[in-house]
Amino acid sequence: MIKVAVLGYGTVGSGVVQVLQDNADVIRARVGEDIEVKYILDLRDFPGDKNEGLVVHDFNIILDDPEVNIVCETMGGVHPAYDFSMSALKAGKCVCTSNKELVENHGPELIATARANGCNYLFEAAVGGGIPIIRAMNTSLAQEKIVKIMGILNGTTNYILTKMAKDGVSYETVLKEAQELGYAERNPEADVEGHDAGRKIAILASLMTGKTVKFADISTEGITKINNRDFEYARKMGKSIKLIAVAECHDGVACIVAPFMIGADHPLNGVNGVFNAVHVTGNMLGDAMFYGQGAGKLATASAVVADVVDMARNMGRELPCVWDEEKLELADYKKLVKRFFVRATVKSRGEVLNTFGSIDEVDLFDEEFAFITSHMSEHDFDKKIANIKGVIKTIRVED
Amino acid sequence: MIKVAVLGYGTVGSGVVQVLQDNADVIRARVGEDIEVKYILDLRDFPGDKNEGLVVHDFNIILDDPEVNIVCETMGGVHPAYDFSMSALKAGKCVCTSNKELVENHGPELIATARANGCNYLFEAAVGGGIPIIRAMNTSLAQEKIVKIMGILNGTTNYILTKMAKDGVSYETVLKEAQELGYAERNPEADVEGHDAGRKIAILASLMTGKTVKFADISTEGITKINNRDFEYARKMGKSIKLIAVAECHDGVACIVAPFMIGADHPLNGVNGVFNAVHVTGNMLGDAMFYGQGAGKLATASAVVADVVDMARNMGRELPCVWDEEKLELADYKKLVKRFFVRATVKSRGEVLNTFGSIDEVDLFDEEFAFITSHMSEHDFDKKIANIKGVIKTIRVED
Repeated sequence: MIKVAVLGYGTVGSGVVQVLQDNADVIRARVGEDIEVKYILDLRDFPGDKNEGLVVHDFNIILDDPEVNIVCETMGGVHPAYDFSMSALKAGKCVCTSNKELVENHGPELIATARANGCNYLFEAAVGGGIPIIRAMNTSLAQEKIVKIMGILNGTTNYILTKMAKDGVSYETVLKEAQELGYAERNPEADVEGHDAGRKIAILASLMTGKTVKFADISTEGITKINNRDFEYARKMGKSIKLIAVAECHDGVACIVAPFMIGADHPLNGVNGVFNAVHVTGNMLGDAMFYGQGAGKLATASAVVADVVDMARNMGRELPCVWDEEKLELADYKKLVKRFFVRATVKSRGEVLNTFGSIDEVDLFDEEFAFITSHMSEHDFDKKIANIKGVIKTIRVED
Repeated sequence: MIKVAVLGYGTVGSGVVQVLQDNADVIRARVGEDIEVKYILDLRDFPGDKNEGLVVHDFNIILDDPEVNIVCETMGGVHPAYDFSMSALKAGKCVCTSNKELVENHGPELIATARANGCNYLFEAAVGGGIPIIRAMNTSLAQEKIVKIMGILNGTTNYILTKMAKDGVSYETVLKEAQELGYAERNPEADVEGHDAGRKIAILASLMTGKTVKFADISTEGITKINNRDFEYARKMGKSIKLIAVAECHDGVACIVAPFMIGADHPLNGVNGVFNAVHVTGNMLGDAMFYGQGAGKLATASAVVADVVDMARNMGRELPCVWDEEKLELADYKKLVKRFFVRATVKSRGEVLNTFGSIDEVDLFDEEFAFITSHMSEHDFDKKIANIKGVIKTIRVED
């Protein structure tokens, strides 16, 4: 019998308890042992909840109970989640988490502490919600040199962009609606400015390289400047606009989070609404994609419980994860070669033609036109664009 | 140092050797140990090949060498692959394979033999080529009750259908071209009649239930009757036509392989060319999809090597896989509820309206019309259709 403590009885934590209880029979059949929730740590009481008898307010009850083998940290935030996780690991208890902020800030330290104490620290649910990308990076893709990762890693922004594309309504209108529906926070900055996606690609880039990629080093550009005209051009060209987090290996690893126009034949093109996806290119495997719900109570909880199952099957055994504390200096993302979508005023057509040569022009509005450049580095593109006064908007392109 | 023997130096086998050799550095970093190819078993010699010195013609050399820890069986066919695999497992050597026919016929027996001898039998590459679906079923999805699997599991038919859809050419023309390009066999029956996809969904349905689903029990319908008019209707309705292998849990598990019209918003809709995908619905996770190259030398070889890495990391330890020899009696797939696309002669419009009530008609050709039914069981649909003399074609629909 494996006994579990869940830290935090909020959305994800209550989902974890539900998955462990409702799917107890399949879990028992596959693990060969019962897995039971013994404690739920929360500051609140939950009178009337069927698990109210499991609720405790003092973390030390969990820490001091030798029966507890596994701790699920679903609190979010760095403190006290960090302290609780470190204490549990030092006591030889396995810990798994949905907390991307903690993993991005302290992942290698927590993994090393787990190893030093004969247990594991897993974080499948911290990236991509229900999408099983972390375990794939550590196992199914371990034989690959990953050359590129492109992820739609934030549910809120993908919901907003999908809605803008389908209904032709403004960013502000959709954001307000998303806030009313609870899909977006009242302070949406972490999502719409790409910070959330940036933390997640930092984690994936760390697993890709085995070293530590810091979110603070990653350039992020949000979706707040994307408007309906951009979508009208995208539609005309058979493309979609997505907030993409990129980690690309080419003379070092470069990362960026930014809106991209995605070509019709790219598998990320049709990833809509609250769904997320991670597109991985390996040197032998070629392209693969992992798709699923990027957030949501039960999808995220299911990923946490996948970690519980993995740890329960591997008590006292180190699960594979190569992520050292050594910091990776990122390469300059402006060296990456791609195409660029450009909107410019009709007045600047002469400058555009002088700078870019012949272009395949798209005309949808009287006073402006748009085109997509050939492949070039972002440095070269910046230099060219500096010559043109009438540039209205530029968006990176992935075909 | 882990030593590997590769059985069969054909397309996949030579790919396995290439992945192990070219990616030796990343594999060493992630496994913490060198993995070296010691033998290649083949009837042929390969003069001038850089690995010609590793080629042996007698399996007993491999079997009798205690240094060989892992055997990669990439021969295909049931014999002698079965005998070699059993002998290796009985000698305590781990075996992994890309051989779907062997796995479908003898999977549980080979797994049980591995367990009895303290080693593992893995088969990631047997389903979906480079798509890491088998390991996901055994680990990342172990906490889920899988309620439905829908897979595009055959590269040849997906290439043919994609080409027909894009170029508007006939099945016969595309098949001939695919044969000339080496994408289709000279005797294409196993692919185009859905037998290959059927073996793969039998394996996935077995892992979904933990019991043995036999390919022989699965109804398969191929793509040979799909023609350009079907694609013209599909395009008009924003759908695509794909050969889909289904395993659905609903009063028992029912399986079928058949062409389906796939709705525009379904993630399988845009899976084109030689790419394959497996769409999985779990009771907690909701929908997820795994996408990648369903065949091809290096993608398939990469999946074989993922198994090598997993076994090398877990020498002497049983890797999770629940698949018992007990046979699962499949439920009647005609009880499954879905919608159906129907083409009928103009003369039969009266019968159609009498039978189906009001329909949303699509008219593209003078002498016929088409519509999609409401949701109903296949039994009910068959009864209704029996009343209508002028039915030209029916195709199952998934939105």
